Amino acid sequence: MADIYLKKNEDRRIEAGHLWVFSNEVLKIEGDAVNGEICSLFTSTGKLLGTGFWNKNSLICLRLLSREKIDSAEKFIKERILAADLLRRSIYSERTAYRLVFGESDRLPGLVIDRFNDTYILQIHSAGMEGMKQIITEVLKNDFSARHILTRHDKYFRNLEGIAEVDEILLGSPEKEIIEIGRVKYQIDFSESQKTGFFFDQAANRIYSSRFVKNGSVLDVFCNTGGFGLHAVSQGAAEVLFTDISEPALTSVKANYELNKFTGKAEFLLGDAFNVLKELHLQKRTFDLVIADPPAFVKSRKRIQEGIKGYINVNSLALNLVKSGGYYATASCSHHISRDMFLEAIHKAALKAGRELRLLHLGGAAEDHPVLLAMPETEYLKFAFFAVE
Amino acid sequence: MADIYLKKNEDRRIEAGHLWVFSNEVLKIEGDAVNGEICSLFTSTGKLLGTGFWNKNSLICLRLLSREKIDSAEKFIKERILAADLLRRSIYSERTAYRLVFGESDRLPGLVIDRFNDTYILQIHSAGMEGMKQIITEVLKNDFSARHILTRHDKYFRNLEGIAEVDEILLGSPEKEIIEIGRVKYQIDFSESQKTGFFFDQAANRIYSSRFVKNGSVLDVFCNTGGFGLHAVSQGAAEVLFTDISEPALTSVKANYELNKFTGKAEFLLGDAFNVLKELHLQKRTFDLVIADPPAFVKSRKRIQEGIKGYINVNSLALNLVKSGGYYATASCSHHISRDMFLEAIHKAALKAGRELRLLHLGGAAEDHPVLLAMPETEYLKFAFFAVE
Repeated sequence: MADIYLKKNEDRRIEAGHLWVFSNEVLKIEGDAVNGEICSLFTSTGKLLGTGFWNKNSLICLRLLSREKIDSAEKFIKERILAADLLRRSIYSERTAYRLVFGESDRLPGLVIDRFNDTYILQIHSAGMEGMKQIITEVLKNDFSARHILTRHDKYFRNLEGIAEVDEILLGSPEKEIIEIGRVKYQIDFSESQKTGFFFDQAANRIYSSRFVKNGSVLDVFCNTGGFGLHAVSQGAAEVLFTDISEPALTSVKANYELNKFTGKAEFLLGDAFNVLKELHLQKRTFDLVIADPPAFVKSRKRIQEGIKGYINVNSLALNLVKSGGYYATASCSHHISRDMFLEAIHKAALKAGRELRLLHLGGAAEDHPVLLAMPETEYLKFAFFAVE
Repeated sequence: MADIYLKKNEDRRIEAGHLWVFSNEVLKIEGDAVNGEICSLFTSTGKLLGTGFWNKNSLICLRLLSREKIDSAEKFIKERILAADLLRRSIYSERTAYRLVFGESDRLPGLVIDRFNDTYILQIHSAGMEGMKQIITEVLKNDFSARHILTRHDKYFRNLEGIAEVDEILLGSPEKEIIEIGRVKYQIDFSESQKTGFFFDQAANRIYSSRFVKNGSVLDVFCNTGGFGLHAVSQGAAEVLFTDISEPALTSVKANYELNKFTGKAEFLLGDAFNVLKELHLQKRTFDLVIADPPAFVKSRKRIQEGIKGYINVNSLALNLVKSGGYYATASCSHHISRDMFLEAIHKAALKAGRELRLLHLGGAAEDHPVLLAMPETEYLKFAFFAVE
């Protein structure tokens, strides 16, 4: 186990609770630091800061696991996963599907685990966690009675860490699960591509939005698996139009609509959101509630301005379709867009569309995506709900 | 009716949706501008910006009512109050108590109306609105079947506008009302002092927090009328300790506890929050959920640093009393403290107390306090809910 020493003052962020060391912050390395292995972290004067995963291939060369020495990585990983689950169980006593582990926020850097009843999806995004794959599988099998485990890595992050991009089935033969959130059932098909994956982070926002449209009409743009629209229908919305650019996504929405035995009027429109919004405006369609939950427009700090233009554009187009006295919900999952930038973009969109907005609710990711105050990197989702005049 | 012309470029903020004109932004006044009367607002080049209340005694010399000419102030005020009520009814279909009008956010500058069944409390904080008192009373009487109307002005704001500070009963003889929010009943006594007034802005946050402590113990610091603690008990919390520095406030909590026929263990502790928190820590008391909802520590921009110290202090003391694996909720109602400053103060408090916090939920004021994106002045309440390790 190697010892890593930080340059003077580079320990401040770590002492304040941050978990990442960047390669330019390292003063010296004592011993043989092997990528993916655990090493100890010290201040320049030799005070222990904690233990973490080393990876010199990554800009983030060290990811802290603990503030102390770790005797057994197996024991540590198991304890952390159990602690993460305890938090979810205390929050979601009625659910068997949630984000069980949310990486750094659960002190498990580079590991994300989504639970769908007895099927677990892993995302591993650090070399260190890649080496723990078997341990994680054992914990899920033995302590959670997991029957199926598969991976759905994000290739982008694997690339940054220099680890292979191949997905694998680690246990069982994952097929389908039906999960239930609030009053909505979803069928999750594990043979489908990542694009129709289920996003737990919007769960609370879907339930929030559904309160406002009893007997009303709903437009769900970038609908993915249809969460916002389905929840609205479950609370009495009379009709809903789902639109997405992905055919598998729309197919899954249809399947979910039928699974829930919903009987109101439902439309399913395949197409690019910008085109669909323009077309609906030409047709003079309006809705009591419009939801636009776009994918991340800003994937890097360099593209912030371009992304903001995208948000202004899509929001102004979507606002055209809200009835006077109706509601508008939108979100941004771009980490690089701050809450204030997000609200400013919506404000500009409203001016562009000539609509007056009143913010009723500003939300974030659901509780199974906790945020570390010391690590802004753990926060990404902004959600805003407006009354529209 | 006088015409007010803005200096060049001073129309930008107004065009973007802001409703206030500051006295140093005025180029010229044509006609006789009488304090409290309605006048028209123009750009330097003579384009109409709207109609508003004039008051040269105030730093905010004009408060916009409308983007257009107003033919009849009576008609305008009535329509805006009805529109404000429509929004509340569509959000709170099951409630007969809410903030009916929230000033600028409802395009009724300087007017706040709280509805408690058939009793209405007015706060009037602009000279212009003061002149509309009889019209407002008539609207509430004729269109809302109000039986009792009284005022509870904020002396500070009246002073800024140079209007008399006397409260009055405008209709009926207000005595008591029992209101119901979620599963909690409150008795509101209109003969009591302002200090035991009911705050609707935390309603959603009280309901949110109450989900997490079934069978657990709760400490409600700065409890006022006891909303957080009472909601926790209504959702199955086993015991609760209410503490406040105001004896009438604690008396109202006791009355509300009995009114709801709650039977668990309840303590009522009179005292200064800082002292009480220290004393409970000495007694080694801990709780599953601690809520600290302090009054505004920062009443002006000049006192921000001092106020932040206050927040760090009270939060670190309160965090000492949270059980490991428990929850912590806190808020700031100081407008001058931004969301980021608020979270940073809590982060510092956590470092001071040696506790690790994970943010589960960041909220604001409830929906009957809508926020105008163009007017940061309409936003003030920050609420954060944490898991504590």
